[in-house]
Amino acid sequence: MSSAKELSSEKTALQSQIKELGDQIRVLKTEKANPDVVKEQVAKLQALKAQLGDDFKMVLKTPKGTRDYGPKAMAIREKVLKIITETFKRHGAETIDTPVFELRDVLLGKYGEEGGKLVFDLSDQGGELCSLRYDLTVPFARYVAMNKISNIKRYHIAKVYRRDQPVMTKGRYREFYQCDFDIAGQYDLMLPEAECLKVVDEVLNSLNLGEFYTKLNHRLLLEGIFSICGIKQSDFKTVCSSVDKLDKAPWLEVRAELVNDKHIDEKAVDALEYYVRLRENNASLGSVELLDLLLEDEKAGSNKQIKQAVDELKILFEYLEIYGVSTRVLFDPSLARGLDYYTGAIYETVMKDFSFNAFTNTDSTNPEDHVTVGSVAAGGRYDKLVGMFLESAGKKKADDVPCVGISFGIERLFSIMEMKEESEKSAGRTNETEVYVASAQKGLLKERMKLCRILWDAGIKSEFAYKANPKMLNQLQYCEDRVIPWVVIVGERELKEGVVKLRNVVSREETDIPYDEIVNELQNRLS
Amino acid sequence: MSSAKELSSEKTALQSQIKELGDQIRVLKTEKANPDVVKEQVAKLQALKAQLGDDFKMVLKTPKGTRDYGPKAMAIREKVLKIITETFKRHGAETIDTPVFELRDVLLGKYGEEGGKLVFDLSDQGGELCSLRYDLTVPFARYVAMNKISNIKRYHIAKVYRRDQPVMTKGRYREFYQCDFDIAGQYDLMLPEAECLKVVDEVLNSLNLGEFYTKLNHRLLLEGIFSICGIKQSDFKTVCSSVDKLDKAPWLEVRAELVNDKHIDEKAVDALEYYVRLRENNASLGSVELLDLLLEDEKAGSNKQIKQAVDELKILFEYLEIYGVSTRVLFDPSLARGLDYYTGAIYETVMKDFSFNAFTNTDSTNPEDHVTVGSVAAGGRYDKLVGMFLESAGKKKADDVPCVGISFGIERLFSIMEMKEESEKSAGRTNETEVYVASAQKGLLKERMKLCRILWDAGIKSEFAYKANPKMLNQLQYCEDRVIPWVVIVGERELKEGVVKLRNVVSREETDIPYDEIVNELQNRLS
Repeated sequence: MSSAKELSSEKTALQSQIKELGDQIRVLKTEKANPDVVKEQVAKLQALKAQLGDDFKMVLKTPKGTRDYGPKAMAIREKVLKIITETFKRHGAETIDTPVFELRDVLLGKYGEEGGKLVFDLSDQGGELCSLRYDLTVPFARYVAMNKISNIKRYHIAKVYRRDQPVMTKGRYREFYQCDFDIAGQYDLMLPEAECLKVVDEVLNSLNLGEFYTKLNHRLLLEGIFSICGIKQSDFKTVCSSVDKLDKAPWLEVRAELVNDKHIDEKAVDALEYYVRLRENNASLGSVELLDLLLEDEKAGSNKQIKQAVDELKILFEYLEIYGVSTRVLFDPSLARGLDYYTGAIYETVMKDFSFNAFTNTDSTNPEDHVTVGSVAAGGRYDKLVGMFLESAGKKKADDVPCVGISFGIERLFSIMEMKEESEKSAGRTNETEVYVASAQKGLLKERMKLCRILWDAGIKSEFAYKANPKMLNQLQYCEDRVIPWVVIVGERELKEGVVKLRNVVSREETDIPYDEIVNELQNRLS
Repeated sequence: MSSAKELSSEKTALQSQIKELGDQIRVLKTEKANPDVVKEQVAKLQALKAQLGDDFKMVLKTPKGTRDYGPKAMAIREKVLKIITETFKRHGAETIDTPVFELRDVLLGKYGEEGGKLVFDLSDQGGELCSLRYDLTVPFARYVAMNKISNIKRYHIAKVYRRDQPVMTKGRYREFYQCDFDIAGQYDLMLPEAECLKVVDEVLNSLNLGEFYTKLNHRLLLEGIFSICGIKQSDFKTVCSSVDKLDKAPWLEVRAELVNDKHIDEKAVDALEYYVRLRENNASLGSVELLDLLLEDEKAGSNKQIKQAVDELKILFEYLEIYGVSTRVLFDPSLARGLDYYTGAIYETVMKDFSFNAFTNTDSTNPEDHVTVGSVAAGGRYDKLVGMFLESAGKKKADDVPCVGISFGIERLFSIMEMKEESEKSAGRTNETEVYVASAQKGLLKERMKLCRILWDAGIKSEFAYKANPKMLNQLQYCEDRVIPWVVIVGERELKEGVVKLRNVVSREETDIPYDEIVNELQNRLS
């Protein structure tokens, strides 16, 4: 006994040594320590683990930033995806699928200042270098270029991967679903953009999760503004990435970042303020009014890029008016999405004042518990991406393949839906079983199996207890727990009389039905 | 001109140097050359690529062993998945989802002699070491253990990853879908196994892809046979992995591998022959007859493990009889699936004499073109896997959570279905558009948009041309290409009269319908 105890305390010591060393190695890696030092420490760790042998404790968890979906979460996920898929199909879209990893070269240089660092790489185990996809847009452009497609309207629902700092309470994961709808092809101005924004509107209205609006801007408008303010072309990306923070941070903070951290000329930054705060300072103006106000500005009004962007956006608003969605789309010159590949209109949809508290009670006064869900969909025009692939693969491109799309960040929509269902206490079903085959007596297992087979073969969703002699109470309890509406009961009396008993789980009513008619009877009651 | 030519020939030379060096590095890696040598060569390669600059040609392809699914393939995939999902739901299953990668420790040591080498690892970019999932079974067991679930019947349809040598013609990829149906919980003998085999039968019958049968064996029976032949317990896995090749290779080849390569005692191997060729040498016997024949053997009949396995399998066949599937399940003592975690019944479903030719014409006489699809589903009982996770995480396990399941390798089913549809020339639709809004005259873009909006808002799947002034012929051609059944035509005359023209694409009949009644009219015609 005592020696077993000694052994066990030895084990505990080893285990805590392992934990400590593991933490140290993680720190070394984060600090990009000398690889040889890291290697040495890892070897030590492995030796310790080997010493512990079979007693090495594994942590039972999913990797950082990922989650399992249990049956309840899946039921919600399927409900959300069904609404989205139906909308995409209503607009004539086809669907495609691409591999979860791409050649590393395909993803390289597509995701701007921040994004590039967040790509998950596969280990070099010999052969090609690959990375997990970061979004569905770049694989789509690769697919269009590779198959020499000149036009396609497709949707793609799949997981993407980002080595971001996960914030589970905001629904921000390292593995998350995207739902993309894109229109590729040479089409007339702003027609595909208008349809993308109509799709957003239909999806969010059908989901019925609360008020939302879409911020709209244009790449050329940003370029024009930066240029009239005297910001160098080469600083475009880095200035965008700061300006894009204006929805979360005050101007002074963004200004400080631009001037102090990024060494942008102070005068240029101060000139920029007027334009990027135009929406903020004219909250009551409609989108077209704000576009007109911008044109009234002497410098802006005479800039070619700004002029073109304003003209295009005005056409878009005309179309949005026809589609009945213009009041939920707001021109905002501070929207500056950080992806390299956008060339025209860009947009981002946010839930209005949506704050929630996923893990504690909703009465919490800690502001950290109330977080804004923020952006639930985003997209824009990217006319050069397919051509870039064609060129870098050395293919002649007959024509550009201009593209425009919208991507739903549905992890956030799932989170909102989950909370909503929880607060409404609506117990969603996680299976679809229609009939449970039960018996009150012993020795009727095979009779239950026989009956269940008849129901399955007739296409009726059925179950029975995997026990030779289950208790009646347990069988009925199972039906109530699982919200199964009907029970078919087989017993000796019933068998003798050639009937089965049909029980309604909710009303508890029971009726004898001739054995041969039970399929028909159930099909009638279920339809 | 001449200098441009020189430049271009210089480029070509560089490019071929890059290709050559790339090939050399791949060889070095495969041969596990000194890492420093490899590093040196990679540095050289990168220098060459930099020299080439923007002219470096990217290969436009998906990673080795992966594929895109275009709209046609997706339509087939969705058809197959719908049938499988409906079957799973008919048997009361819920669904879950797990991350595409797991902590490396979770997958370690679960996939036998061959499988372990084929796991895809993620790069160590700091933080946890992760690998792509190799199957859905181990993540399921991890999920059950982590959430302390005592019983669940779940299905999971998702992609898994294996660094195998891909054989596209056989539908063998490095990224492929699995569809798993598993029953976890303490239940009475063979009831869940019988239901898994019933599910296989229902799925393959519904898919209607040809004849199939399921080979059935039992882990204990294999252990018993090996033991009476004098094969050491420690050789169990490696002997299994050879025996499992008997469906593709003749006995003498397997014998040679066992005796010469794996140094198994020759006498033991010769004793083994009788048992593992029992099915082959008694092709006309039914499963229960073959089980009885095995028991008649003096040594086998008195072995406890064999006795238990035979008893269990006989009960299973009784249940399969009730479910009407026993004739398509065949006891075969040579089935020895290579996964470590099986503890009881194991099974594998194969398409009978299914040969096909995916990429060339079907008249080919080259036998390499006609390949057998082979296994389309497989599974078995694994009673210890959940407990293993609980133990290695240092959790007390109150009870074991026994599991049994079936996994469909649907990539092969997709391939068969694709060929079948191709040979039947059945043009499956890739979108679901019901109505196309067209016009014959110029200047009616906004009228088409207005009408389309009305249809979308009424839930009718509609499209129109993204052109200001499309030609009528092109619009009608689009409908024929896309198999869209109805066209609504708007024109100046129609607008004046307050009507639209409704055209049936197939019959070309046209009728005027009052503008306000078009939604009702279409809903009636579409229902």
